[in-house]
Amino acid sequence: MILKRREFMKSMSFVISGLMLSGLNSLAYADRKNKKSNIVIIFADDLGYGDLSSFGHPTIKTPCLDKMASEGQKWTNFYAAASVCTPSRAGLLTGRLPIRNGMCSDKLRVLFPNSTGGLPEDEITIAEALKTQGYATGCVGKWHLGHLPQYLPTNNGFDSYFGIPYSNDMDWTKTNSWRDAKAAMKNPKTEYWNVPLMRNEEIVERPANQNTITKRYTEESIKFIKDNKNNPFFLYLAHNLPHVPLFASKKFQDKSVRGLYGDVIEEIDWGVGQILDTLKKEGIAKNTLVVFTSDNGPWLVFDEHGGSAGLLKDGKGTTWEGGMREPTIFWQPGKIKPGIVTDIGSTLDLFTTACKLGGTKIPDDRIIDGLDLCPTLFDEKSSPRKIMFYYRGTKIYAVRKGMFKAHFITETAYAENDNLMHHDPPLLFHLGHDPSEKYNIAEKYPEIIEDIKHEIEVHQSKLVIPESQLEKHL
Amino acid sequence: MILKRREFMKSMSFVISGLMLSGLNSLAYADRKNKKSNIVIIFADDLGYGDLSSFGHPTIKTPCLDKMASEGQKWTNFYAAASVCTPSRAGLLTGRLPIRNGMCSDKLRVLFPNSTGGLPEDEITIAEALKTQGYATGCVGKWHLGHLPQYLPTNNGFDSYFGIPYSNDMDWTKTNSWRDAKAAMKNPKTEYWNVPLMRNEEIVERPANQNTITKRYTEESIKFIKDNKNNPFFLYLAHNLPHVPLFASKKFQDKSVRGLYGDVIEEIDWGVGQILDTLKKEGIAKNTLVVFTSDNGPWLVFDEHGGSAGLLKDGKGTTWEGGMREPTIFWQPGKIKPGIVTDIGSTLDLFTTACKLGGTKIPDDRIIDGLDLCPTLFDEKSSPRKIMFYYRGTKIYAVRKGMFKAHFITETAYAENDNLMHHDPPLLFHLGHDPSEKYNIAEKYPEIIEDIKHEIEVHQSKLVIPESQLEKHL
Repeated sequence: MILKRREFMKSMSFVISGLMLSGLNSLAYADRKNKKSNIVIIFADDLGYGDLSSFGHPTIKTPCLDKMASEGQKWTNFYAAASVCTPSRAGLLTGRLPIRNGMCSDKLRVLFPNSTGGLPEDEITIAEALKTQGYATGCVGKWHLGHLPQYLPTNNGFDSYFGIPYSNDMDWTKTNSWRDAKAAMKNPKTEYWNVPLMRNEEIVERPANQNTITKRYTEESIKFIKDNKNNPFFLYLAHNLPHVPLFASKKFQDKSVRGLYGDVIEEIDWGVGQILDTLKKEGIAKNTLVVFTSDNGPWLVFDEHGGSAGLLKDGKGTTWEGGMREPTIFWQPGKIKPGIVTDIGSTLDLFTTACKLGGTKIPDDRIIDGLDLCPTLFDEKSSPRKIMFYYRGTKIYAVRKGMFKAHFITETAYAENDNLMHHDPPLLFHLGHDPSEKYNIAEKYPEIIEDIKHEIEVHQSKLVIPESQLEKHL
Repeated sequence: MILKRREFMKSMSFVISGLMLSGLNSLAYADRKNKKSNIVIIFADDLGYGDLSSFGHPTIKTPCLDKMASEGQKWTNFYAAASVCTPSRAGLLTGRLPIRNGMCSDKLRVLFPNSTGGLPEDEITIAEALKTQGYATGCVGKWHLGHLPQYLPTNNGFDSYFGIPYSNDMDWTKTNSWRDAKAAMKNPKTEYWNVPLMRNEEIVERPANQNTITKRYTEESIKFIKDNKNNPFFLYLAHNLPHVPLFASKKFQDKSVRGLYGDVIEEIDWGVGQILDTLKKEGIAKNTLVVFTSDNGPWLVFDEHGGSAGLLKDGKGTTWEGGMREPTIFWQPGKIKPGIVTDIGSTLDLFTTACKLGGTKIPDDRIIDGLDLCPTLFDEKSSPRKIMFYYRGTKIYAVRKGMFKAHFITETAYAENDNLMHHDPPLLFHLGHDPSEKYNIAEKYPEIIEDIKHEIEVHQSKLVIPESQLEKHL
């Protein structure tokens, strides 16, 4: 039986009571060695695998992220939970494939402003799990898991929220023509998109001034860190950018050799630098795990306004590597052994890893897809993740096991170029030898294909598909 | 009038005499601050832009080159002089486009074992230029500028030579079928290629045991450095690999997640680490400029046995960026300010830069295409290079000026897929915004195209094309 979220919170309340008894103040000044690790997740939107200097981009300069990577672990085989926003974010925050909680659909790929659905109440977010352990929890930035009050961050375990509740290209103020919208996205003005900026459950600005949005998210994050430096805290900073339309503060406009897209990334990079510097200055860097990654690959249909997946194939919206593999960095100076990790990881694993670090139990009344990455982060062990399911909507398009990836269905990113193809036998690629998925080796490895098919059977035998939240709308 | 090489050497001999008078020993123990900089060029063969970790490869581990890049300058817009071996190497060693010295052809792209041509005697190599300043000069590895005695390194300014004088896939011992050869390259055994290994002008091993070739080149280089640590020295280490057929020492076989190609790169990376460590241990690192780059992009027709140009388009043999832009690192601890350089540079510039560092004059009796990169390397000035000509054989296929690149002719890498196309107006790309050359913007910038056409006219007005050395054969 699945506990309702409030019951879960109640079942864990003894821990909070315990903290209350010992006094929160005592925790604030506790020996830092025994303090629970703070957790910061910095999540970009539509950032491509190849868009950071340290992941090979020749003209985008990301000195702060590059330094973070050299001081921490650079993960080169790390996946988002889906190839588009809403399901990807649902997967990250719950540690569960979006197929398990209705946060995907074969008709609509994400939530829209007229959506009435959102993350179901009985799902447990990282914030809720850590809240039971006395964590202060802050959400800054894009939410996209439902914008009706009951679905907002403050009803999903976060003490506070400041951000645009969905994509920055929604609430288009002009005609309904996609062509016009696309043209506007290539020459963006913030007033073209009447997106709300919210503080907790109130709209405080509409349209949100997107020119300064990255700067303001960074400042809000720094304030949250400073305000909570004596608590254990969890900060989820989900930038609205570099999703189109692109905006950068004056200080960053026309600065990057890569043009506006580069300006945007370089401002996010600056923000990451500010946050890491704050953690260092406040003396809590060693006690804070920071993760940087993105929700899905680059939105290639926007040409120069979209990013690059580097040597990976295709981008956002597809189950090729470019759609779901993300440039990912883990950082905790003195705790994480610096290096490059080529093992598999996923944003799904952040839930489980955060629970482990926070000392809360992994819910055992439901399937959790996340795995605990702590042994890899802190003890140089190999990653526990050996398998990845690449869903599109409710269907498995591809599966990676170890180095082998089998594509059962392939399809271009968006329906306008629809070319859905079923493959039997599936296409098979060795992602170690052939990261660009060029050389189909299905004929050579029938036994690998059988093994992967077996994994799908096992996976599907335990799968219960709930109603889609994305299909609920006005 | 162009001086013959021996006349140039003679004209510069006063410098050597001067050194002789003051006694070479005094130089050996001279204040290191006043000592001329040593120069080491490490040149890979067919390495792709995306084949190092620090240039974005997800499964090839290159910790030594990555460290070199973080301690030095990582150049992300650095070009080989041509998209295939022989002309590229001629350009590097002479600072002159291969069109000027006959080291290119529209019929044969490189020198073959039956070639009777080579680098013309009146050309001045880096080794010859530095020899006039008392440098010890060593060449280790692939030469490919003529293998008849008069063309060998020891007749081109090098005191010593140890290596295979051309490509490691030549002297095929089986049939003459390209198909068979291609199959063999994918499952290589060293005895399939009867290539000679030479010491100075003698063949010392045939077929060269290619399994240990990278290791032996590294050891030879270290010996050269140790033997000459009290001289100013110039070492040109040109690996035969990762050109197919691929070979790695036992220690590196089956080690890389990327397979055999990765094994090969990881052994080269190890070798670079050994060389930098030697320079450090000998106390001469601060006085030694080390450059790492490659002769051209990845040889894509060999599938997994070829490399990756990362986000750049196409590979070896083409004038797309993937054919000529190379992962390039400059290193001189304490002298070079670490960072990422997005300005343009070329292997052509190594001649001029080496002459500046060595204190020898740039020949003024001929056109030198190289430019002095010292201001960028040592004083954080912008690169003097603003323009790049992309030749294929004797024809200009493309020109880059600043961020804009115009393609007048495009063609696939090899004739078997011949699809030569002339473009009028040329295709135009902004390489800053669009490094993958996807979005043709010729219509928007007619004035840029006119300017580039003017540059071609100026360039061609001074061009004298000598007879091709590549077309001379038995």
